[in-house]
Amino acid sequence: MGVQPVPTQLRHFDQELEQLKSKLLAMSALVESAVYRSITAVVQKDRKLAEEVLTNEARVNQMELEIDDQAISLLALQQPMAGDLRLITSALKINNDLERMGDLAVNIAQRALALMEEPMVQPMIDIPHIGALVQSMVRKALDSFVARDAELAHSVLASDDAVDNLRTAFFHELISFMQREPNHIPQALNLLSIVRNLERIADHSTNIAEDVLYYVKGIDVRHHAEAVAVTREPRG
Amino acid sequence: MGVQPVPTQLRHFDQELEQLKSKLLAMSALVESAVYRSITAVVQKDRKLAEEVLTNEARVNQMELEIDDQAISLLALQQPMAGDLRLITSALKINNDLERMGDLAVNIAQRALALMEEPMVQPMIDIPHIGALVQSMVRKALDSFVARDAELAHSVLASDDAVDNLRTAFFHELISFMQREPNHIPQALNLLSIVRNLERIADHSTNIAEDVLYYVKGIDVRHHAEAVAVTREPRG
Repeated sequence: MGVQPVPTQLRHFDQELEQLKSKLLAMSALVESAVYRSITAVVQKDRKLAEEVLTNEARVNQMELEIDDQAISLLALQQPMAGDLRLITSALKINNDLERMGDLAVNIAQRALALMEEPMVQPMIDIPHIGALVQSMVRKALDSFVARDAELAHSVLASDDAVDNLRTAFFHELISFMQREPNHIPQALNLLSIVRNLERIADHSTNIAEDVLYYVKGIDVRHHAEAVAVTREPRG
Repeated sequence: MGVQPVPTQLRHFDQELEQLKSKLLAMSALVESAVYRSITAVVQKDRKLAEEVLTNEARVNQMELEIDDQAISLLALQQPMAGDLRLITSALKINNDLERMGDLAVNIAQRALALMEEPMVQPMIDIPHIGALVQSMVRKALDSFVARDAELAHSVLASDDAVDNLRTAFFHELISFMQREPNHIPQALNLLSIVRNLERIADHSTNIAEDVLYYVKGIDVRHHAEAVAVTREPRG
């Protein structure tokens, strides 16, 4: 029995699909590093890292457009089925979440720069802790996509509650700080904005984990809390 | 000369495209009304309107999934070209922005309910003004899609600066209010959150206007400030 030759058109499709995947991985790496740098810039008051986040934004935006174009042309011209169709539509959604995470990292980097102008009166409260948790959510969400690992994706969804609890505690502490030190309210509001942006990065990691579950299992868990092991807030 | 019959498959495609468009219009109407109700709930302290926004969220989420599915199956199964392809990919993006705007309206409605618990110490500062401006951006963005009106879409992009200016003025006023009245900092933070959510709704209106320009003109103005008449912040 001879080996059945693969039709050229199919091989071409597979190549383009691989290309799409590796572009999305490159985009993930860029955004993960932007999130890491922005958080470290806040915690270590590192101006250089903050500036790198601002500089790299253009690349993230450019990659978003390229991935979008490639995914849409694969969808429109190749009529992919089942698993491939799910991969491409997930890539579109993950790409969008990544770009927004990149924007949020830029917001955080800008706040980091604003905070460098003045001596910190208040310690960072729980920002290093929240930052570390959010960073691990980002990493797990992206790893779950690479490894097609549904269990890891579920663990991202479960972390959302921990972020909510830390955020609530932070919020109460921040209010008493502002009441004690009204002169430092502008500084406190920068800290608040950083935590809000971290929270939104966590939300996007959750979106990505949901897309991974859809891609791996073929079920759509968006807006269906009962389909996952944990109760969580609506997507977005 | 006889009239050329339209192939059945094409007629079917056109019907599905029309269906997609009218679903997206229904989704737009839902979200526009959620934004309207949430803003009015804040300004007029109307509990009923705020609760309606919370109740309607499930419908918005459901419609997002339906529109997504329909757009993706049209893309994957019908191999649309040029204008139709742009319409469908724009529909996907607009759908996503609309769902997020719905979430932001829910956030505002929740803050409106929180503010109803306590007497307002501070007048609303400029919230009614910012709310009216953002609402008009939402309406223009959606109208520009319906009417395929590039000029109207451009006018949405131009409004972004006005929102930024109002937001900055609001922010300064809010800080002095908090410094004068530290006991009312929690109330002030609710107002701040409302304005941040309004600002994000304005950003999504801008995204939609950009998608309309792409759909109408076939050019991608995302991340290319020079392609539009005004300078604006990055998408997202």
